[in-house]
Amino acid sequence: MSGNSFGKIFKLTTFGESHGSCIGGIIEGCPAGFKIDFKFIYKQLARRRPGQSDIVSNRKEDDEVEFLSGIFENKTIGTPIGFVIKNKDYISDDYDHIKDSFRPSHADFTYYKKYGIRDYRGGGRSSARETACRVVAGSIAQQFLSQKGVSVKAYVSQIGKIKIQRNYDDLDLNNIDNSLVRCPDDYCSSEMIKHIKKIKQDGDTLGGQITGLALSVPVGLGEPVFDKLHADLGKAMLSVNSVKGFEYGFKDKDIVSSLGSEVNDIIINADGKTKSNNSGGIQGGISNGNDIYFRVKFKPVSTIMKDQASVDKNGNKIIIKGKGRHDVCVVPRAVPIVEAMTSMVLFDHYLRNKSCKIH
Amino acid sequence: MSGNSFGKIFKLTTFGESHGSCIGGIIEGCPAGFKIDFKFIYKQLARRRPGQSDIVSNRKEDDEVEFLSGIFENKTIGTPIGFVIKNKDYISDDYDHIKDSFRPSHADFTYYKKYGIRDYRGGGRSSARETACRVVAGSIAQQFLSQKGVSVKAYVSQIGKIKIQRNYDDLDLNNIDNSLVRCPDDYCSSEMIKHIKKIKQDGDTLGGQITGLALSVPVGLGEPVFDKLHADLGKAMLSVNSVKGFEYGFKDKDIVSSLGSEVNDIIINADGKTKSNNSGGIQGGISNGNDIYFRVKFKPVSTIMKDQASVDKNGNKIIIKGKGRHDVCVVPRAVPIVEAMTSMVLFDHYLRNKSCKIH
Amino acid sequence: MSGNSFGKIFKLTTFGESHGSCIGGIIEGCPAGFKIDFKFIYKQLARRRPGQSDIVSNRKEDDEVEFLSGIFENKTIGTPIGFVIKNKDYISDDYDHIKDSFRPSHADFTYYKKYGIRDYRGGGRSSARETACRVVAGSIAQQFLSQKGVSVKAYVSQIGKIKIQRNYDDLDLNNIDNSLVRCPDDYCSSEMIKHIKKIKQDGDTLGGQITGLALSVPVGLGEPVFDKLHADLGKAMLSVNSVKGFEYGFKDKDIVSSLGSEVNDIIINADGKTKSNNSGGIQGGISNGNDIYFRVKFKPVSTIMKDQASVDKNGNKIIIKGKGRHDVCVVPRAVPIVEAMTSMVLFDHYLRNKSCKIH
Amino acid sequence: MSGNSFGKIFKLTTFGESHGSCIGGIIEGCPAGFKIDFKFIYKQLARRRPGQSDIVSNRKEDDEVEFLSGIFENKTIGTPIGFVIKNKDYISDDYDHIKDSFRPSHADFTYYKKYGIRDYRGGGRSSARETACRVVAGSIAQQFLSQKGVSVKAYVSQIGKIKIQRNYDDLDLNNIDNSLVRCPDDYCSSEMIKHIKKIKQDGDTLGGQITGLALSVPVGLGEPVFDKLHADLGKAMLSVNSVKGFEYGFKDKDIVSSLGSEVNDIIINADGKTKSNNSGGIQGGISNGNDIYFRVKFKPVSTIMKDQASVDKNGNKIIIKGKGRHDVCVVPRAVPIVEAMTSMVLFDHYLRNKSCKIH
Repeated sequence: MSGNSFGKIFKLTTFGESHGSCIGGIIEGCPAGFKIDFKFIYKQLARRRPGQSDIVSNRKEDDEVEFLSGIFENKTIGTPIGFVIKNKDYISDDYDHIKDSFRPSHADFTYYKKYGIRDYRGGGRSSARETACRVVAGSIAQQFLSQKGVSVKAYVSQIGKIKIQRNYDDLDLNNIDNSLVRCPDDYCSSEMIKHIKKIKQDGDTLGGQITGLALSVPVGLGEPVFDKLHADLGKAMLSVNSVKGFEYGFKDKDIVSSLGSEVNDIIINADGKTKSNNSGGIQGGISNGNDIYFRVKFKPVSTIMKDQASVDKNGNKIIIKGKGRHDVCVVPRAVPIVEAMTSMVLFDHYLRNKSCKIH
Repeated sequence: MSGNSFGKIFKLTTFGESHGSCIGGIIEGCPAGFKIDFKFIYKQLARRRPGQSDIVSNRKEDDEVEFLSGIFENKTIGTPIGFVIKNKDYISDDYDHIKDSFRPSHADFTYYKKYGIRDYRGGGRSSARETACRVVAGSIAQQFLSQKGVSVKAYVSQIGKIKIQRNYDDLDLNNIDNSLVRCPDDYCSSEMIKHIKKIKQDGDTLGGQITGLALSVPVGLGEPVFDKLHADLGKAMLSVNSVKGFEYGFKDKDIVSSLGSEVNDIIINADGKTKSNNSGGIQGGISNGNDIYFRVKFKPVSTIMKDQASVDKNGNKIIIKGKGRHDVCVVPRAVPIVEAMTSMVLFDHYLRNKSCKIH
Repeated sequence: MSGNSFGKIFKLTTFGESHGSCIGGIIEGCPAGFKIDFKFIYKQLARRRPGQSDIVSNRKEDDEVEFLSGIFENKTIGTPIGFVIKNKDYISDDYDHIKDSFRPSHADFTYYKKYGIRDYRGGGRSSARETACRVVAGSIAQQFLSQKGVSVKAYVSQIGKIKIQRNYDDLDLNNIDNSLVRCPDDYCSSEMIKHIKKIKQDGDTLGGQITGLALSVPVGLGEPVFDKLHADLGKAMLSVNSVKGFEYGFKDKDIVSSLGSEVNDIIINADGKTKSNNSGGIQGGISNGNDIYFRVKFKPVSTIMKDQASVDKNGNKIIIKGKGRHDVCVVPRAVPIVEAMTSMVLFDHYLRNKSCKIH
Repeated sequence: MSGNSFGKIFKLTTFGESHGSCIGGIIEGCPAGFKIDFKFIYKQLARRRPGQSDIVSNRKEDDEVEFLSGIFENKTIGTPIGFVIKNKDYISDDYDHIKDSFRPSHADFTYYKKYGIRDYRGGGRSSARETACRVVAGSIAQQFLSQKGVSVKAYVSQIGKIKIQRNYDDLDLNNIDNSLVRCPDDYCSSEMIKHIKKIKQDGDTLGGQITGLALSVPVGLGEPVFDKLHADLGKAMLSVNSVKGFEYGFKDKDIVSSLGSEVNDIIINADGKTKSNNSGGIQGGISNGNDIYFRVKFKPVSTIMKDQASVDKNGNKIIIKGKGRHDVCVVPRAVPIVEAMTSMVLFDHYLRNKSCKIH
């Protein structure tokens, strides 16, 4: 039973391999009568696409999305929204050398063993190219949320060892896209860029951390006991390529080593406003109206421009050469993906929550 | 749309409030003809139940599970397994004082706002008492996995500031239950116990970390692209009460600040055995046959034995007194819950994986 | 992947075998804050239970339902409603003779082959006893619908060859329960009762037909393209024991042999009121505000009080004796089941429909 | 919560409106490593498409399917299969007259009321054009089944009042496609064709019946208690445009008026072979190895070439003219759709059944 869908009411199903003719998806559950802001979708895709700056992969993809259904005279009509994004600038020859062998820390081996067959070109289905589809759906969800007053944002808070020292509420969030690495702290941003350039020269790669935010979320989103809001956010983030960890709340304190008396959030009014917000805007799996914030940890990119030992299908020892047009650090490009996944989770829970009360 | 079910093929649906007559659930997807080891279920329940030692809540619950269907002459028959666990030692009067008010960092406020009504007694549905049902289902999943050679384990690797300094492969895992806190390192274990006793006297509470393990997992479990094995494990853990963070792999290195060349896992034979295992046994969301390991972070217990400010329904300022029989640190009791959730995820994916190949 | 759940938002999951300790279920998706009318549930269960009159099975079951969760001070609280119904008057010895053999037109053979094991006592999970759980959930759904002004009803329109000659809108629907067989036409009712008594003496059994109705249903329920309202109603009915056919609309005309010009429903006002109603209140799978009506066809009961040839597990020819306390005709007892399934479908679609428009 | 998906493991999700740029879908759950027979898919599409003969709609659609993913070197690779079918010969002007008004017995009114907006061109999403996507997915499922020895077939057994008098096992099923109306009885076939031509001249339309068959189905498919095999078949058929009724089994006898002793199926060997087969190959919702057969009832086409009264959005009385290129009787074109839906249900249950036993 495959896992190509995300969400229950607002639901995205994706298809497509990195070097096939296109990738695409079907978005279900968009309420009808909503005017789509296509420019916002294009903007989010542009923030994710390769070739957007000289510190990311120079694969040239316009990532033009073509909508095939579900929208009539620019408005949603309640029927599913099918869409495709063409794959244009793929160089499958770059992958001939891994046809029968397995790159370290990639999904080559596991796909081959699971399915007994694989499309090795560009990583096939395991490529992060698939996340462009998430950005399409997520940026539609984000528009719906925006209409409800909810604001979803994300920024890079760490690359390699360079880490922002301030919390989200201490930063100018309007500054995020003034930075090539989407870090709103100017000093850190320039250090990160320098670091990426240096590591690129070494043929090596970097990981990083993204801080995700959802502000002005209404109280009540999240479903006990398994579909807690943070559990669904965590799954959403962990489903993104290269993500290894997720944490929410506790911006100032350590989760594990704090005392209860140090971190309990005192409620100060009938709207649930709390003095501190170690809970990260979620209590018992349900949004409490305070800021939702979380951290997503990305490992360094697996493809490095260095020789690495590996084996082929038959277990023969081989050397894998670093090839192809890869990012040194994917984290800046992952910012719109984190926003997209956050928006999908929140809007899905917004719709799910519609049935919770009789009145 | 509520969230009381977990899993796709092997699936648990639970019901029950902390101070209702009982809690219980329905387990679907158990293959027929399997002889159930009831003693193992009871043992896992005993590891979770309150009153098991003097460092945990002294609510006295036998947690005797009664199976109502799906088992005939001790074997599964392919039909759903209904079960109940009676609530016996509840003292609802302990909760009269919060009937119209909200405890800090508890789900009182969010449940009330979401549903417009709540069963305040013992936290109602938001109580961790519900996790007993997960242990029932998980310990059945664990038996199926065990028959396939898979070993699922968990242990406490940190309580408060006291942290185990060795990795899982450097520890004697048979030693876990020799420790009241389920920490297999003797020195850490005794320090943790001392620390819990001290903090208890202060009327305060502690958080902690559990390390989860799944050994000898077959290659191929996990479904691209949303239901990656680690994404489902992450959601499983984050759905457990008090969990704030989840990370997998990278036992020796830091996820975010390592270089690609430092952490890539070199494959050394055709079975996918890798030299290092920073991937934590999962690549591209699919198990690769190496050890699966992860860390689950628990915040300190929210109920403290100290006065705390809060508000009531009408926004009037009040003082909440610490009352009831609560744990200082839930982490030792959460070990079988982590095992249960891990087992449910793995066995569900084992069954899901049955359809992936034509042969 | 098992099939013990029905519904998407309003959802019932059932468990239990005919001769286990009890049957039961979990109801999810009840909006919170709704006052439950328990008497209505008991009444519907009483209409379904055996032993209610001398023309049905004389197994004595009170069918007392015990609610275990999800209801606090008589109101729903948004959490799942767990419930059980004890099995009291079962005589498992009645089934020893089929332990290793297969009754004609029963599920004995298929369960045994599917699972490799079976609980043969009373038909186990395949027994229609499971439908009592459907009546519990359905009669809760029916109360919600009733509050929205929707009226769900069903009656027996045929038993054996005796068939009501009038349509539903020509009958006094208040008369249904004045009849032992739940047929509102007095003459037919008494003929049906006579017929059942005669056939009982012969040791034989009868089939029949139930007409189901949903009146004052709001426009807009049903989801294109697979979850059409009538497709979900059809599945609901066909999932009931002994049902072999389902048809909706066309009360006066034959579906297959009519001409388009004879059966098209002319819309006469902006509310969608139609002159005729061959569509049966549903167009394109979506309710149109006119009366929904349909027919459910039941085969005769498979257990007859006559000797029948069959085989045992090993293929040896045997004779099966008619034994146990069985109905000659289940159709009168199935009336509340049809109402229950109809109500579950409609209320689930009512909740699903909440997300269809932006305003 | 929308309803654009069908199936649990083998799963189709469709999108597309009649006069949009294309229709399409995503097929999940195809086991990897299967060589696709594209010609069979094209053949089934050709049997469904308009313009195939002079007795059907003369809209000219090649219905060329373009596969976008999930297939590599002609084999399935376990990833989702995305596909599109272009809409070519649409004349949206034909629909300007219904922009603000509602055709009798069409979905115009219900879509408009449900969503508050509609794509009126060609019926939009409510058009049977969507069924081409089902044929694509179904004909892939059919290939998998065929490899397992299962044979799925369907034929027209009635058009208007002209009804085949023989049962399926008395007919030459190789003769189906020798008939323009897909009726294997030569005499009936020519009468049906004559009848269609006559009714076309009258500007009127006809309904009909299709008999569906699945032969050599393994024992054990179908999941108690809600997902009975015939319940899923019934839902599948009722989800097809114009279908009003579904019945299975009882080819020789009347379901409702037969006696138990007349219709019980005597099992004659250990493989479950029965003497008669009134059960239609399914007992207790599970296939028993005998022939599965059922009847699907279609109402006459709603678009007639005659003036009909109706109302517009504002309730003003109007006259609807018959326009566009419509079928007099859709039943011959629906034969591959019935095969497709049958195949999807059976193959999905085949995959679901893989988890039912421990061995």
